[in-house]
Amino acid sequence: SVRKMLHEFPPSDVALILESSPTKTRDELWELIDGDAHGDILEELSEEVRNGIISKMMPHNVVDALEEMDTDDLAETLSSLPDEVLRDILQSMDTQDRLRAEQALSYGEETAGFIMNTDTITLRPDVSVDVVLRYIRLKGNLPENTDTFYVVNRTDNLVGSVPVARLLTAAPDDKVVEVMDEEAQAIPVNMPDDEVASLFERYNWLSAPVVDDNYRLVGRITIDDVVDIIREDAEHSMMSMAGLDDEEDTFAPVWQSTQRRSVWLGVNLLTALLAAMVSDLFEATLSQLAVLAILNTIVPSMGGVAGNQTLTLVIRGMALGHVNPSSSRWLISKEIAIGFLNGMIWAVLIATVIALWKQNVMLGAIIAFAMMINMLAAAIAGATLPIVMKKLKIDPALAGSVILTTITDVVGIFAFLGTATLFLV
Amino acid sequence: SVRKMLHEFPPSDVALILESSPTKTRDELWELIDGDAHGDILEELSEEVRNGIISKMMPHNVVDALEEMDTDDLAETLSSLPDEVLRDILQSMDTQDRLRAEQALSYGEETAGFIMNTDTITLRPDVSVDVVLRYIRLKGNLPENTDTFYVVNRTDNLVGSVPVARLLTAAPDDKVVEVMDEEAQAIPVNMPDDEVASLFERYNWLSAPVVDDNYRLVGRITIDDVVDIIREDAEHSMMSMAGLDDEEDTFAPVWQSTQRRSVWLGVNLLTALLAAMVSDLFEATLSQLAVLAILNTIVPSMGGVAGNQTLTLVIRGMALGHVNPSSSRWLISKEIAIGFLNGMIWAVLIATVIALWKQNVMLGAIIAFAMMINMLAAAIAGATLPIVMKKLKIDPALAGSVILTTITDVVGIFAFLGTATLFLV
Ligand SMILES: [Mg+2]
Ligand SMILES: [Mg+2]
Ligand SMILES: [Mg+2]
Ligand SMILES: [Mg+2]
Ligand SMILES: [Mg+2]
Ligand SMILES: [Mg+2]
Ligand SMILES: [Mg+2]
Ligand SMILES: [Mg+2]
Ligand SMILES: [Mg+2]
Ligand SMILES: [Mg+2]
Ligand SMILES: [Mg+2]
Ligand SMILES: [Mg+2]
Ligand SMILES: [Mg+2]
Repeated sequence: SVRKMLHEFPPSDVALILESSPTKTRDELWELIDGDAHGDILEELSEEVRNGIISKMMPHNVVDALEEMDTDDLAETLSSLPDEVLRDILQSMDTQDRLRAEQALSYGEETAGFIMNTDTITLRPDVSVDVVLRYIRLKGNLPENTDTFYVVNRTDNLVGSVPVARLLTAAPDDKVVEVMDEEAQAIPVNMPDDEVASLFERYNWLSAPVVDDNYRLVGRITIDDVVDIIREDAEHSMMSMAGLDDEEDTFAPVWQSTQRRSVWLGVNLLTALLAAMVSDLFEATLSQLAVLAILNTIVPSMGGVAGNQTLTLVIRGMALGHVNPSSSRWLISKEIAIGFLNGMIWAVLIATVIALWKQNVMLGAIIAFAMMINMLAAAIAGATLPIVMKKLKIDPALAGSVILTTITDVVGIFAFLGTATLFLV
Repeated sequence: SVRKMLHEFPPSDVALILESSPTKTRDELWELIDGDAHGDILEELSEEVRNGIISKMMPHNVVDALEEMDTDDLAETLSSLPDEVLRDILQSMDTQDRLRAEQALSYGEETAGFIMNTDTITLRPDVSVDVVLRYIRLKGNLPENTDTFYVVNRTDNLVGSVPVARLLTAAPDDKVVEVMDEEAQAIPVNMPDDEVASLFERYNWLSAPVVDDNYRLVGRITIDDVVDIIREDAEHSMMSMAGLDDEEDTFAPVWQSTQRRSVWLGVNLLTALLAAMVSDLFEATLSQLAVLAILNTIVPSMGGVAGNQTLTLVIRGMALGHVNPSSSRWLISKEIAIGFLNGMIWAVLIATVIALWKQNVMLGAIIAFAMMINMLAAAIAGATLPIVMKKLKIDPALAGSVILTTITDVVGIFAFLGTATLFLV
């Protein structure tokens, strides 16, 4: 039966099945799942799907599911819930659980503290490997994904780290201080999570210690959660560039999705109307020469594509940490040079096509000139917009592309219809 | 001095500095780097930057740098080189190195075999934990990122796995067979690397064993390399959607970048000309009513944005494995329903704006009708294109967006100018 199958699958697989189902099926399946598995499955779900399920559960059942979760998963689950749902759940908790929940929520979202676990095993520098091994044997099993033990002094300050494998090769009477690495790089509890992810990627870490302002060890971050951040950030860029919320559930109800997408369509309608108003300034020209109306979209369209290429490349370069103040000036000059070359190439091509198609050399020259201008505008806008927006703390992936195409539309139409008005009418 | 600084930095940091520098500076910096560090730095560089450096090195220096590399890094480095450079390097190798290189290159790119390491430590089921520990102590240090030992029988078939931490808690006289996990999930050597990445993400693995067709252990894959694949695949989608090569070096020379981007601009020019030709069919109408020329871009533009939202959502859903044959039918219906609602909302809005702006109710009704048609076309195209393209083995992130906007441009122009010709002329 389905119930038995859901019971035998690992939590990650059940989560995948739930994510791939329309909301109604999802709710029916959830009813068939054993309460004991709730916590493990909830932590594998994406935000929107998880919130949908939790808001239909009884608060005391949610509390039971949360009890089993690690602090990082608890923080993520609770922080994304709507306020009323969160309040109901906190009220159903006993004092101990509520303290744990408040602790988990005490760090800002998207920080190291938010994604760390507090179940770290710590060692003292002056004990011997032998004693450590006996302690571990007594303890039975280690926290998930433990690849390194951290060494702290009396005041809990981080002084070093010992990879688990090191304990296998060390002599039993060695002291921890003799086998530990001293230069363990620690992560400040307030570091933004995307910086944490960059560090893991760059140094190929499996886990890293997290310290507070006084360099006291407060937890550890593991690679499996960093992988989720890398995936989410990459998705965020891709979804934002299309004007979508990156938490959008593929199988959300129709009306909910329609509302979410309407913001972006509304913004686009405004920019399309703006472009129409620019064309409107040239109504007299257009009514004399219908051919201009036919060709009016070519220059803005090419500018939009070229500008988006530059914009995307600069956004990716910034995400990878390759764009810094010294390299950004070089990069802007490079993109302007490319814009200039692009302008030349496509100006010559389009001029030839139009001169032949419409048997009008002057018209070809005019569209070539407009193409040149717009390609330059596209390069300048594409290269500088993300850098300026980042300084203003606006997400370039979200708004960059609209502002860019508004610029290339307006410049393209002005350049084409303006020049045509001067020389053809 | 710079030389000393480069010497003291970890290889990953030196790689980041090189990636963030224009080509000329990059070459100068490379000259200052100690030969011993070449291999470790090369393996941290992106493909295009690495190829640029290697093609300027003496083949025997490249051979020295490759000697230190793990098989996965060796495979990646060699496979991305231009043919002539690869030939020169293979010729400078001694027989043993060449065999290793040919072995590393024997698996297809983007497969599990290509990203695995062959330095795996294997255990036999019938030895005791005590013996294993003595063997490991004798060996001194373990391969990078070893979190699990694999257990194989006499014919090298994978029979189980033992997490490193397990050896710490096991009794010395326990046999390996008693402490091992039997259900180790193995990766077939030909599995595509993005499927490998999904498995690591879903099950939170740190490493996984790779087996051949006879279930013989041939290597292991570690999470640090999987992180690179996740990052690359996410970048690939984002870059492809803007018509960029995902290997494009942000600091490549101007002419090289211009050439690379021109393909996409050429395709776009063709589609823009196609749209112009559609408008050209209505030249008579346009020359009578210049207002149509002014409003002609609004409907195609809204269709493009709505269609791209649907397209992006479906591409992401497919990447996450949420879209399967049974859910895709549901998804297509959902997107068509959203397209219908979107069409209604924006049709009413644009009709009101145009009726007021141009004082023409009929014109408002015509643009509303065209908007309705195009929003439906956008939803159908956005939802079905990626599914159809995937079946045809075309990358939807690369070509989906052009085909989509071509459809929404053509349908939008036909619907608007066609209806206007019927009712206004
Ligand atoms: Mg979140
Ligand atoms: Mg758990
Ligand atoms: Mg890495
Ligand atoms: Mg975790
Ligand atoms: Mg997690
Ligand atoms: Mg984030
Ligand atoms: Mg590659
Ligand atoms: Mg190495
Ligand atoms: Mg390596
Ligand atoms: Mg995971
Ligand atoms: Mg590796
Ligand atoms: Mg790698
Ligand atoms: Mg790939």
